Amino acid sequence: MTTRTSTTTADPAGTPTASAGVRVTSTTLADGRELLYFDDSEPYVSGAATRRLDDPRPLPDRFAPDADGVVPTGPELRRDPLTGEWVAIAAHRMNRTFLPPADANPLAPARPGATYQDGEIPAEDYDVVVFENRFPSLLRVPGVLDEVTLRDDEPLWQTRPAVGRCEVVCFSADPTASLRTVGPRRMRTVIEAWAHRTAALNATEGVEQVFAFENRGKEIGVTLHHPHGQIYALPYLAPRTATMLAAASEHRARTGRLLGRDVLDAELRHATRVVLESEHWVAYVPFAARWPVEVHLVPRRDVPDLPALDDAERADLATTYLELLRRLDLFFVDDDTAVPLPYISGWHQAPARQGRDDWRLSLQVFSVLRAPGKLKYLAGVESGVAAWVSDTTPERIAARLQELA
Amino acid sequence: MTTRTSTTTADPAGTPTASAGVRVTSTTLADGRELLYFDDSEPYVSGAATRRLDDPRPLPDRFAPDADGVVPTGPELRRDPLTGEWVAIAAHRMNRTFLPPADANPLAPARPGATYQDGEIPAEDYDVVVFENRFPSLLRVPGVLDEVTLRDDEPLWQTRPAVGRCEVVCFSADPTASLRTVGPRRMRTVIEAWAHRTAALNATEGVEQVFAFENRGKEIGVTLHHPHGQIYALPYLAPRTATMLAAASEHRARTGRLLGRDVLDAELRHATRVVLESEHWVAYVPFAARWPVEVHLVPRRDVPDLPALDDAERADLATTYLELLRRLDLFFVDDDTAVPLPYISGWHQAPARQGRDDWRLSLQVFSVLRAPGKLKYLAGVESGVAAWVSDTTPERIAARLQELA
Repeated sequence: MTTRTSTTTADPAGTPTASAGVRVTSTTLADGRELLYFDDSEPYVSGAATRRLDDPRPLPDRFAPDADGVVPTGPELRRDPLTGEWVAIAAHRMNRTFLPPADANPLAPARPGATYQDGEIPAEDYDVVVFENRFPSLLRVPGVLDEVTLRDDEPLWQTRPAVGRCEVVCFSADPTASLRTVGPRRMRTVIEAWAHRTAALNATEGVEQVFAFENRGKEIGVTLHHPHGQIYALPYLAPRTATMLAAASEHRARTGRLLGRDVLDAELRHATRVVLESEHWVAYVPFAARWPVEVHLVPRRDVPDLPALDDAERADLATTYLELLRRLDLFFVDDDTAVPLPYISGWHQAPARQGRDDWRLSLQVFSVLRAPGKLKYLAGVESGVAAWVSDTTPERIAARLQELA
Repeated sequence: MTTRTSTTTADPAGTPTASAGVRVTSTTLADGRELLYFDDSEPYVSGAATRRLDDPRPLPDRFAPDADGVVPTGPELRRDPLTGEWVAIAAHRMNRTFLPPADANPLAPARPGATYQDGEIPAEDYDVVVFENRFPSLLRVPGVLDEVTLRDDEPLWQTRPAVGRCEVVCFSADPTASLRTVGPRRMRTVIEAWAHRTAALNATEGVEQVFAFENRGKEIGVTLHHPHGQIYALPYLAPRTATMLAAASEHRARTGRLLGRDVLDAELRHATRVVLESEHWVAYVPFAARWPVEVHLVPRRDVPDLPALDDAERADLATTYLELLRRLDLFFVDDDTAVPLPYISGWHQAPARQGRDDWRLSLQVFSVLRAPGKLKYLAGVESGVAAWVSDTTPERIAARLQELA
C-alpha cells in the first residue's frame, strides 16, 4: 500500500496565490496526484489542519509498473495527416485497480468518522477543490520524453506523448447545488481557482493553452451531477483556438486593432444582441451564433485571460455570471415550468506562449437544446465537414434573454 | 392551386447521364422543386410515363410572396468574425403552409389510386429518387444577388444569401429497408445518383463543394427511418474541407505527391488497420481516428470525386460498401444480439472549383456509439475548442472489423 501525503501551503515560485482572501492549500493524494483546496472564509474548513485528512485509500502510485511489470506510458497524441490536427488517444489509461462503488459520489467530501473513503477528497468539508483527474486524457509521465516520433518509421504517422494536465474543479461540497446556486462569494472563489490554475498551468513546461470549461446536464452526457467543471492544460493549440488566433492576428495586421475589441464595440454600438451589461462586463449573442442558445460574456477592458482580471472585475464577474446563468435556466419553459438548460461553457483565454497580444478574453456559453426535449444533433454537415447550420437567429436568442432581465 | 409539372429526360448540357443502364427522369413538384427518378431496370417503374404522376398537392410556389405580400429571401450566411467561418442561418424558412400528417412518411411512394398524396414523391413506385429538400438550409432564390453585404454597415458583420441546394436521396421505396439491405444492384444506382448529382451541382453557378452524406439512427437525431441520405451543394468551402485541402496542398508543395495517395500507401505497407480490400477499393481505420468507430473507404486509383470513377470501380464500390456496412452492423453486440450501428457517412470529394489536383476521393464512416447504449458526447473540449479525445485506439477498432471478415 502506497500512501504518499505531502502538504504545502501554496505560492510556489511563479504561481500566484489567489486574491480576495482565498486561502490555497496544496496536498497530494495517495497515488501522487495534486489536490488544492480553495477556502474562502474562516475557518478555512478544508485547508485547516484539524479538518484536513490524509488520503487513506490504497491507491497504487500512478506511475509505478503494473502487476505485469509494464511501466505506464500515458496517453498519446497522434497527428491526423489529413488535417494536420493532433488527436488525443487516451485508451491506455493509468492503473484502474481502485474504483469507488458505483453509487458513490467521488466529489463529495469525506464522511466524518468514516474509516473508508469513497471519493477523491480527503477533507470532511470544503469550499472549492481542484484536483488532477484520475483518468486523464493528458498527463506528463516522468521520464517520458516530450518529442515527436514516427510510428513504424512512417513520415505521416507522427506521435508524441499527450503531456499536459486534466483537472477537476468542484464548485461546492453540496452535491445538490449547481454553479447557478452557489452565491456570489463562492462564485468568486471559483473564479479565483480558475485564475490560479490558469496562471500555474500556463507556467508549466510544455503547456500551450489552458481551457477551463463546464459541461452541465445529462443531455450532453454528464453522468456525475455533483457541480463541477474541468480544466485542460493542452500541449498544443486546439484547432478552434488556432483558427481564432489566426483571425485575430489577421485583423491586427490589417487594421492595427484588437479583433475582440472591435467585435465588442460593434455589439455595443447597435445593442440589438446585447443581453446584459454590468460595470465591467457585457454579455451578447454573437452575430453568427451557431448553437440554439449561445452567449458570449466579455470584460469591458482588454485583457488576455482570467489572471489579468483585477479585483473589481472579478467581483463583478461573480454576480454577472450568476445573473447570466439565472436567465439561461429560464430560457425554455415547458408546461409553465422552467427547464434547466443543459449547457457547455468555456473560457477562451490567450494561449500560454503565443499570440497573447492579439487575444481578448471571452466566455462562451452554449446549449444543444432547441426546445424542451429537443436537441440539436451534430449530424452529417456539422460532424463531417464542420459546416454549421442554425435553425434560429441570433436576434431571437437575444430577444428571449433580454425579456428575462 | 399551383400545379406546375414539366418533365424532361435528363442529360442537360454539361451534366452526364448516369451509366450502368440507369435511366434518369427529371420532373418538377407542385412548388417548383426538382425531383429526379433514377430507374435501374425495366420497366423503369418511376420514370415510365404510365406510372409517373403529376404532383397533385396544393403547394404554393416557394418563391411567391406570402399572405402578407412578403417575398421570401431564403436562408442567410453570416461570417463569424472570430473564426472567419460562414454559418448558415436557416430560420427564415420558406412557405410552410403545407405539412403532411404527422404519421405520414414523406419519402414513401404515392399510394396507388389515392386521391390525396401524403408525401413528396408522386410516382407509385421507384428505385432511387433525388429531390430538393422542401425546407433547405441552402437555396438560390431567383432575383436575390449572390454578394456579400454588411449588416448595419458594420465591417465585421458580413452576410450573404445562402445560395446552394439541399437534396434528399431516397435509397429505396421500402421504408423498412436500409442502405445495407438494398443489394448491389440498387446500391449501384445510389452511386450513380451521387455521381450524377455531384457532376450537375459542381457545374452549378456559385457552388464550391458538394457533400453527399447519410445520417442513420435515432442516436444522431434521425427521426425519419425511411432509408435516405442528403446532398448539400455549398457556396463556400466547409471549414473541415478547407483544412483538408490546405494539408493536401502543403503536402503537394513539400513532396510533389498526392497526400491521399501517400496516406493509403502507408496503410497498405503495414496493413495493421486495413480492414477490407477489393480489386478497386481499400477500407482502413485511419491512424488518428477520432470517433469510437471510424473507417475510411478509398479507391486504389487516384480520383478526385465520384464522377471520376469508372464503371468497374463503381460496380466494385457497390459490393465493397455493402460489405463494410454489414460489418459495421455487427460491430457491437449486446446480449448476443448485434446492435445496428448509428452512423454518419460522408463523401469527401474534391471542391468544385479549386484544389482538384490535390484532392483524393474518400468516404468517411463514423459512429458516436462507444458501446451498446453508450454514446460519445461532444462536450467541452470537442465542442468548445475542437480538441479531440478518443477513448479507444484505431488499432482496436480495426481489429474488431477484421475479425468480422
